[in-house]
Amino acid sequence: MDFAASPRAKELTDLVTTFVTEEIEPVVDDYHRDVARGGDHTTWAESQIMTELRAKARAQGLWNLFLPVGHDQPYAEQFGTHGGAGLSNLDYAPVAEAMGRATTLAPYVFNCNAPDTGNMEVLLKYGTAEQKQTWLEPLLDGQIRSMFGMTEPGVASSDATNMAATAVLDGDDVVINGTKWFSTGVGHPDCKVMIFMGLTDPDADRHHRHSMVLVPLDADGVEVQRMLPTMGIYDEPVGHGQVRMTDVRVPQSNLLLGAGRAFEIAQGRLGPGRIHHCMRLIGQAEVALELAIKRGLSRTAFGKPIINLGGNRERIADARMAINQARLLVLHAAWKLDTEGAAPSEVSQIKVVVPNVAQQVIDMAIQLHGGAGMTQDLPLSAMWTNARSLRLADGPDEVHRGVVARAEIGRYKEATR
Amino acid sequence: MDFAASPRAKELTDLVTTFVTEEIEPVVDDYHRDVARGGDHTTWAESQIMTELRAKARAQGLWNLFLPVGHDQPYAEQFGTHGGAGLSNLDYAPVAEAMGRATTLAPYVFNCNAPDTGNMEVLLKYGTAEQKQTWLEPLLDGQIRSMFGMTEPGVASSDATNMAATAVLDGDDVVINGTKWFSTGVGHPDCKVMIFMGLTDPDADRHHRHSMVLVPLDADGVEVQRMLPTMGIYDEPVGHGQVRMTDVRVPQSNLLLGAGRAFEIAQGRLGPGRIHHCMRLIGQAEVALELAIKRGLSRTAFGKPIINLGGNRERIADARMAINQARLLVLHAAWKLDTEGAAPSEVSQIKVVVPNVAQQVIDMAIQLHGGAGMTQDLPLSAMWTNARSLRLADGPDEVHRGVVARAEIGRYKEATR
Amino acid sequence: MDFAASPRAKELTDLVTTFVTEEIEPVVDDYHRDVARGGDHTTWAESQIMTELRAKARAQGLWNLFLPVGHDQPYAEQFGTHGGAGLSNLDYAPVAEAMGRATTLAPYVFNCNAPDTGNMEVLLKYGTAEQKQTWLEPLLDGQIRSMFGMTEPGVASSDATNMAATAVLDGDDVVINGTKWFSTGVGHPDCKVMIFMGLTDPDADRHHRHSMVLVPLDADGVEVQRMLPTMGIYDEPVGHGQVRMTDVRVPQSNLLLGAGRAFEIAQGRLGPGRIHHCMRLIGQAEVALELAIKRGLSRTAFGKPIINLGGNRERIADARMAINQARLLVLHAAWKLDTEGAAPSEVSQIKVVVPNVAQQVIDMAIQLHGGAGMTQDLPLSAMWTNARSLRLADGPDEVHRGVVARAEIGRYKEATR
Amino acid sequence: MDFAASPRAKELTDLVTTFVTEEIEPVVDDYHRDVARGGDHTTWAESQIMTELRAKARAQGLWNLFLPVGHDQPYAEQFGTHGGAGLSNLDYAPVAEAMGRATTLAPYVFNCNAPDTGNMEVLLKYGTAEQKQTWLEPLLDGQIRSMFGMTEPGVASSDATNMAATAVLDGDDVVINGTKWFSTGVGHPDCKVMIFMGLTDPDADRHHRHSMVLVPLDADGVEVQRMLPTMGIYDEPVGHGQVRMTDVRVPQSNLLLGAGRAFEIAQGRLGPGRIHHCMRLIGQAEVALELAIKRGLSRTAFGKPIINLGGNRERIADARMAINQARLLVLHAAWKLDTEGAAPSEVSQIKVVVPNVAQQVIDMAIQLHGGAGMTQDLPLSAMWTNARSLRLADGPDEVHRGVVARAEIGRYKEATR
Repeated sequence: MDFAASPRAKELTDLVTTFVTEEIEPVVDDYHRDVARGGDHTTWAESQIMTELRAKARAQGLWNLFLPVGHDQPYAEQFGTHGGAGLSNLDYAPVAEAMGRATTLAPYVFNCNAPDTGNMEVLLKYGTAEQKQTWLEPLLDGQIRSMFGMTEPGVASSDATNMAATAVLDGDDVVINGTKWFSTGVGHPDCKVMIFMGLTDPDADRHHRHSMVLVPLDADGVEVQRMLPTMGIYDEPVGHGQVRMTDVRVPQSNLLLGAGRAFEIAQGRLGPGRIHHCMRLIGQAEVALELAIKRGLSRTAFGKPIINLGGNRERIADARMAINQARLLVLHAAWKLDTEGAAPSEVSQIKVVVPNVAQQVIDMAIQLHGGAGMTQDLPLSAMWTNARSLRLADGPDEVHRGVVARAEIGRYKEATR
Repeated sequence: MDFAASPRAKELTDLVTTFVTEEIEPVVDDYHRDVARGGDHTTWAESQIMTELRAKARAQGLWNLFLPVGHDQPYAEQFGTHGGAGLSNLDYAPVAEAMGRATTLAPYVFNCNAPDTGNMEVLLKYGTAEQKQTWLEPLLDGQIRSMFGMTEPGVASSDATNMAATAVLDGDDVVINGTKWFSTGVGHPDCKVMIFMGLTDPDADRHHRHSMVLVPLDADGVEVQRMLPTMGIYDEPVGHGQVRMTDVRVPQSNLLLGAGRAFEIAQGRLGPGRIHHCMRLIGQAEVALELAIKRGLSRTAFGKPIINLGGNRERIADARMAINQARLLVLHAAWKLDTEGAAPSEVSQIKVVVPNVAQQVIDMAIQLHGGAGMTQDLPLSAMWTNARSLRLADGPDEVHRGVVARAEIGRYKEATR
Repeated sequence: MDFAASPRAKELTDLVTTFVTEEIEPVVDDYHRDVARGGDHTTWAESQIMTELRAKARAQGLWNLFLPVGHDQPYAEQFGTHGGAGLSNLDYAPVAEAMGRATTLAPYVFNCNAPDTGNMEVLLKYGTAEQKQTWLEPLLDGQIRSMFGMTEPGVASSDATNMAATAVLDGDDVVINGTKWFSTGVGHPDCKVMIFMGLTDPDADRHHRHSMVLVPLDADGVEVQRMLPTMGIYDEPVGHGQVRMTDVRVPQSNLLLGAGRAFEIAQGRLGPGRIHHCMRLIGQAEVALELAIKRGLSRTAFGKPIINLGGNRERIADARMAINQARLLVLHAAWKLDTEGAAPSEVSQIKVVVPNVAQQVIDMAIQLHGGAGMTQDLPLSAMWTNARSLRLADGPDEVHRGVVARAEIGRYKEATR
Repeated sequence: MDFAASPRAKELTDLVTTFVTEEIEPVVDDYHRDVARGGDHTTWAESQIMTELRAKARAQGLWNLFLPVGHDQPYAEQFGTHGGAGLSNLDYAPVAEAMGRATTLAPYVFNCNAPDTGNMEVLLKYGTAEQKQTWLEPLLDGQIRSMFGMTEPGVASSDATNMAATAVLDGDDVVINGTKWFSTGVGHPDCKVMIFMGLTDPDADRHHRHSMVLVPLDADGVEVQRMLPTMGIYDEPVGHGQVRMTDVRVPQSNLLLGAGRAFEIAQGRLGPGRIHHCMRLIGQAEVALELAIKRGLSRTAFGKPIINLGGNRERIADARMAINQARLLVLHAAWKLDTEGAAPSEVSQIKVVVPNVAQQVIDMAIQLHGGAGMTQDLPLSAMWTNARSLRLADGPDEVHRGVVARAEIGRYKEATR
């Protein structure tokens, strides 16, 4: 149960931290001004700032660091030039925390952003050679981006078996119909492919009805209908889109792993991604706490630095205690995922704890800043929205609490829901 | 301690509720599409929808209902045609709750929106005949809008004596310098005047240093520098602006009540306004709760309506209990304000309790909706932002908790802060 | 919706407050020392202090004030000398709050203590003339006390239909078997009768299976097995007992209202009793807040009165806001109970809110006192235990939340649990 | 940052767990019946059960396990027969958690109970050869017990410099006056000595005014005035006493480390003790969670196991997440204490987090048990009282939050309180 990062992970964390501080933070505001376009568009332009940052990061070897390439050595050799760092989840954790400090840019700068990371892992693990060549290689190379089509507007997506979109086998093809939303990344001009999840065989058992299919976004019948703000924020140029598919036809060779195996793939896809999300949120909570203290020291009211007024110091202490506990919980989940291959309760635990802790710490930091905390002058409102949305994305808190409870109660008796 | 609304207030509440339901709610989405422009502008266009709604509301006598005209009978006669309803705070409370159900439009439809309401009350109570004719009449008549220039970006505005902008007497004029922000309303094309608060005499005692001055927005030296989003939302076409004043010169006849009397005016201005804000928030919390239940009944997951999953029913109960308590607390504060003329602790109590309750109930409703709750398809994200911002606007929670504590502790001994 | 107390209620509240302050508070410690015996006993001795206080209170007409005698005028005439004050629930509320300030003694001093109050109301409303003469008269007269036998150790009593004790009709008799616990009052030497609730007809529908029967405690087969501490406190000489009944035989004339009608009686019994409990808790929360502030002003640490350290002033404010909201909620429930005869959601709301608020405020007061707050030198630990136990007594929070949710959701659709 | 226990620690944890389960748990109720005496006494009798358990534990080598003897090798040789296990704080943590499962007995069974552990560490570290022989040896040998005299009834002891009791140097003697309370252990017949802390030189600087002195409890002038319940519980036969010292005279050779050095000693004394307390609380929280689940599975209401009603499963999940985070935080603090010698912020963090988590989890477990949870039939009420009291003992939450805030804010600037 050793949570210390390896020397290689420490070195990468330092490099990423330096890059974030010296290269990214100074241009964050310019970048956001560059890409700000609001919600009238369904595709936005990328900023030249990002192109340059990505080139610079890649030149320093800070590229695809999330990729546990060691798990698939032959592939590592094949794509060595843009291969990952071979880090365990525990080792990648502090790297992700460092990226979290500039969360709206950094993950993409280092080609470590969701949902591309999860999609690349799926392709790496389950893709055919052809699928790898067509989609994985350009993703690893940063030429294209991707989206993941799972959540639907018409059903309670917290129960994944509710999914209504269809992927029907028809001759050599798969015919796809339905609407997905909260498809992150689809607003980006480089977004070229979706991993689509849909119903293939309604008569199969609950967890073998759905398939995953690779769908090029320029296929006939794919329409990005609109972009969705989360709490008023569009996250340009990435965006979260609503995508309608009408009789979209792709060859069966675009199926991942074969028909009816979507849940099997989804299962493995989400663990590491949740570690990444949570560690980035820890990074954001640290930024929020730091901003709160600095503001509290620099502004005065009623004759005192505001940090010394009322319960403010207690709030700082509460934030520190909450962050430390949350980080240790994530490291423990990562360690268990690394050592046991799966840690469903632990991963659900962090998925509940960390976004809530981050939301509270950021809310506190906003409050300590007064009105400024809610403006575009500070990253707090974007960070808040990100934390809030992660209480729903990848499964709402309530579903994850259910997973934790089932594991806990199951130790004593198999209780029905 | 009778909290029942008068027959007149009940009638008005019913009329407003019907108007909100039948006239406003059906056009809310169209309206927001019409005015959506994002943050690149400092002035937005108003929508024709609003013009028509206002005309219709006024034709039904649903106009300036906030105005306690009975307090100033002569004036009521003079401006009878657009005069208020003469309601007490307690009687206006349910009217405001009804408006809160469509909070982004309704207050303005009925000419009952902040900060115009507070500004009109100030002019009514403290304005000269000339000031009334020039500014109050067109405000009551709905020809113009106004802003209130108090909060500043460079200081902790929670301590109002920190204010750095200046209103210096110079011959017959007042010369104004400084920057104000979170100036709500300044983005609207009809916004023509500000009530500015600034430092006149740094040597006077703490609460007699500042003055309030009427400043036309087209005066030389007034510059709206930019609009500020709150948590990503610009509230077009109203907006919250940052306004820079450089050597703005207005005649001393624009002073309200005379130099050095700003705090005296501010004191009386905020009580009723806080009742309004809080009752509108109660209206929003009710909408959120209603939406949550309807969604919970209509969507299913794991074989049940989601309202019946996990702790959801308990959350509904908690929301009901919190809203009921919050509403009673506001009614009690309104009743005390009416009967005793002032209720500083009670008004501070509602200013803490209600935005927090509203934020929590809305957050719960968002969670129950899944991703949809965060999109523009539902009013929840705008309502959430409104509630969150009201934990800072008109004084942060912490300052109001301080007021409540002082009153409470003062009952036993005069304790220093 | 007028929450103001009537002149008569105000007068009684003042008299009770004065009596509590001048007569009861000075002897509280002596009283508790007098009756302290621990848990080895199943019956304790009463203190002479109590006997004298009761005589004095009665002489001042402060006796049976809870009794809404006006509801039953003929009876009022018959038992006028020890009759109640004819107060509505709303009017009795501040009287109960005043008694709450010395909650371990005052209710009994004024013959207004649970469960005697509820039992007297049941007898008044449903008792035969003979039952009234035998049991109600001596209860009103303060000669005897009573217990209520409902909760059982072997089942989840939160679902009252779980009840396993039996009241079987046999010839002219009712034969009673089973074990009841948390039978408050049974430790008192004057406790002479129980209202027992048990299963009569397992084949009847869910709410007509059980009967209520008057059982003298000296009947053959009744055994008080032991006294139960709540959180370590035995509440001598009242106590909460475990009572075993083995083939106890009483005549059918001891049935209340007839076989199978227990739920009908129970329904009406609990509303007013919950108002009383909640208002007494409000009184206790006020005492706790007062003690906290006084301690905070009188002790110093790190060079300041401790009230001014850290978040203490905010805690005082939070307590004030919570108490005020809770009290208004109770007054509203009382008002609704008076005007509409029943208010199930409102009564359940206060049953959740008030004990939780009281527990939190008392916990805060303990914390502010340091170790002293947990000792017998202050009433705080007894008050805390009382508040905590009321989150379970008369139905746990969770059941009451369920009632509130059902009412709320039922407004939109009849949803199943 | 390896939190895994050493093989030796794992083995000891297993042995202690087995001993607790097989030897202690079956006799807990008998033991408490044996020693129950209530508050009329100032000394209680020990039970034969304890004597036998201690002999058995010692025979298995489960004795003084807390003692980090390796730190003082010569002494280890000298007292090898009753020496400790030489465990680091991190290694002792799971052992303490195992003892926490039967917290009212187990620590004393294994001679690992507070305040003896802290007192033994002080003697080991700072005692003269004579002091060690006279007091440390019999403590290690389990012949006597001890108390620690720090907290005082008349001042806010959260600020240790408030201490008013005196230890005045007079010739070759020290003369002691004052009153201490919450002196845990003094009710035990074997309690023979106190480590007293009092004011020696009021003119010295703030942290050099006080001395620690060994005072035999049979010295002239020492009077145990009364025992103090915490929330109604006396913890017989250990007890928490109020001890008055009047002109107690002991030789200066009874001073620990010399006059004026009390704070220097206190500083080092508390770190490991807090780790022990917190890990025992973790053990109790685990017991509470286990009891809650088992009860929830075995009782039914409204046709379901109560674990499946309302938000109960979510509560189980929340408890699991809170406990896991709290445990990791303690392990991290222990690891830091071991590796860096001091960890003031981390130790204060656990001192806030763990008792609060334990209190909440135990409260939840009580609620899930209904009334039974508050009775003597289950360990929950005693566990609750223990957790609650530890939010005050060894410094109230507020003081520890202050320590955490100071460290956190100090990273940015030295801010004054």
